[in-house]
Amino acid sequence: MIPLTGLSDRIVIGWDIGGAQTKCAAVGPDGAPVGKGSRSFEVWKGPEELDEVLKSLGQEFCASERAVMAVTMTAELCDCFRTKMEGVLFVLDSFRRSFPSSEVWCISGRGKWKSLEEAALSPGDFAATNWRAAAAWLARSFGSGLWVDTGSTTTDIIPLIDGVPAALGSTDTERLIHGELVYTGVVRSNPDTLTDRVPVKGSMCRVADERFSSMGDCYLILGDMDASSYTAPTCDGRPADLHHAVSRLARLSCSDTDSINVHEARIMAVYLREKQIGVISEAMLQVCSRFREPLSVIPSGAGKFLVSEAARRIGLPETGLSGVIPDGYETHLPAYAAAAGFLSTFK
Amino acid sequence: MIPLTGLSDRIVIGWDIGGAQTKCAAVGPDGAPVGKGSRSFEVWKGPEELDEVLKSLGQEFCASERAVMAVTMTAELCDCFRTKMEGVLFVLDSFRRSFPSSEVWCISGRGKWKSLEEAALSPGDFAATNWRAAAAWLARSFGSGLWVDTGSTTTDIIPLIDGVPAALGSTDTERLIHGELVYTGVVRSNPDTLTDRVPVKGSMCRVADERFSSMGDCYLILGDMDASSYTAPTCDGRPADLHHAVSRLARLSCSDTDSINVHEARIMAVYLREKQIGVISEAMLQVCSRFREPLSVIPSGAGKFLVSEAARRIGLPETGLSGVIPDGYETHLPAYAAAAGFLSTFK
Repeated sequence: MIPLTGLSDRIVIGWDIGGAQTKCAAVGPDGAPVGKGSRSFEVWKGPEELDEVLKSLGQEFCASERAVMAVTMTAELCDCFRTKMEGVLFVLDSFRRSFPSSEVWCISGRGKWKSLEEAALSPGDFAATNWRAAAAWLARSFGSGLWVDTGSTTTDIIPLIDGVPAALGSTDTERLIHGELVYTGVVRSNPDTLTDRVPVKGSMCRVADERFSSMGDCYLILGDMDASSYTAPTCDGRPADLHHAVSRLARLSCSDTDSINVHEARIMAVYLREKQIGVISEAMLQVCSRFREPLSVIPSGAGKFLVSEAARRIGLPETGLSGVIPDGYETHLPAYAAAAGFLSTFK
Repeated sequence: MIPLTGLSDRIVIGWDIGGAQTKCAAVGPDGAPVGKGSRSFEVWKGPEELDEVLKSLGQEFCASERAVMAVTMTAELCDCFRTKMEGVLFVLDSFRRSFPSSEVWCISGRGKWKSLEEAALSPGDFAATNWRAAAAWLARSFGSGLWVDTGSTTTDIIPLIDGVPAALGSTDTERLIHGELVYTGVVRSNPDTLTDRVPVKGSMCRVADERFSSMGDCYLILGDMDASSYTAPTCDGRPADLHHAVSRLARLSCSDTDSINVHEARIMAVYLREKQIGVISEAMLQVCSRFREPLSVIPSGAGKFLVSEAARRIGLPETGLSGVIPDGYETHLPAYAAAAGFLSTFK
């Protein structure tokens, strides 16, 4: 790979290729943000469509061959791929096909930027990297803290110490073990993963092991989220509104809106929110138990309201992202940090 | 039994005979409180000492034969008694021996006052009554609400609707089933009953199934309670102070103060507090799920700080006891309400 040169007049597009969502954010040569985009795209339903998603998002920035792509991903875990290595190679190939004459760079699990061609030689090192660039960016900005990002699907809990990420895990499996990754989020999570029973008409009622509802339905019912934040298909394909959310959640107890009203659904939703905050708090405490001093929590993601509440409960102070991430880019933090971090690394 | 007469010049002493604590509170003929008392007394260690405990507490009020005893109890569940009926009869006999010439009245599981002699004919109806008189008293005072009393050992969650208690359970077993009784409290509860692992040095560590520590140790460590509220013997017999609380809690993870410091113990304690609030919230939601409208929570007991926090989390407003229970008598609510409720029933 020819060493990267001439970043002084090129935009850098950061990418966050998730299993259910693809996001990008671009910065200009001066580091100022110039735009962002996203698509709900479930990779496992038709991975061959990824090329189209990348091209269509790239076109929003008139991505010329002079644009540089800075790539992070988690989509490689989708079960349409036999292994994570196969998944990483698929994503890399899709970038090469979609932007044949662009430079494409990827961040590794150890935080190093490598060209697409280098990355393809050791694809295992480039899996599950969507938190890497953001962790480095936030560590540089805040020095120390506990960055907790609750997204639609997962929660990252990354300690930052003296300007560098202090994560113990580099693979997702290691991160799950250390409490640095919790597979729970505010939209797609299945309530079944949080509890085996819910309060219904005075009893604790066992739940149906089906995919009838998502945590996004709970947060619609509770007013914690609106439809625009419901960044995934609903379980029944019907709208992301209060009425249909109640209908979906009612089925968790094998019921329906003939027998469960909004107030009763709200009690189930409150209970599930408590369970989800509990899961996030537990992992935060696990990570904190490695350090001798309390860390200030930096919440982010669509579910940052849960993170703020968890921090309050376990007695940790909170620090906002204001001034560190441009307004409107918080929802695109991994993509923005990939672009901005890449630029500041190579400029 | 001769019908009760002449309450116009007699004091009524209300009793709350628990398994680990005996409490009493007295009111004068005009209903004004005239005193209260308590003893830490573990009935199962020597039930025959109950007579002495009753007599010594009674003497604090110069309990003459003109004093009326209004009795509630839960001590009958102690495993020194073969059955609950045997336990109730033991308590009744102890009252008769201790106050041979006093009138002794007991409240039944259905809220009816009966003389000791009548109660002895159907002892099963007089088990687990320590919440009954208080529920009736609070229902008369507040109309509707959710009375939640977290004591040293257990939590009562009693819905009050239109001036009367609306509990579904009358026996403890029924109350456990309906979420109206949760066997968890702020002093005596074993952390093992709240979780099977705790955060330690970056891992979730399994716990020792021993009686090394109590939740009272957690609340000492967190500063939620002071030594004067630690109304039970500590597990190791050493003092109820921060240093010894850390030492006891450290053993939960088979550790000691050589390897677990105060900050690390604090993280374990925060985690256990979260679990305990979760257990209380769950039962509150179970009970609330029977009603179409949200109820205002009335917290009481040594653990009312947990109840207030649980109410906040599940979005219920809170109402205080101020003006309903005389200052200083909140900690003796069942005994006070037995006395005051008895007086207002028969006066």
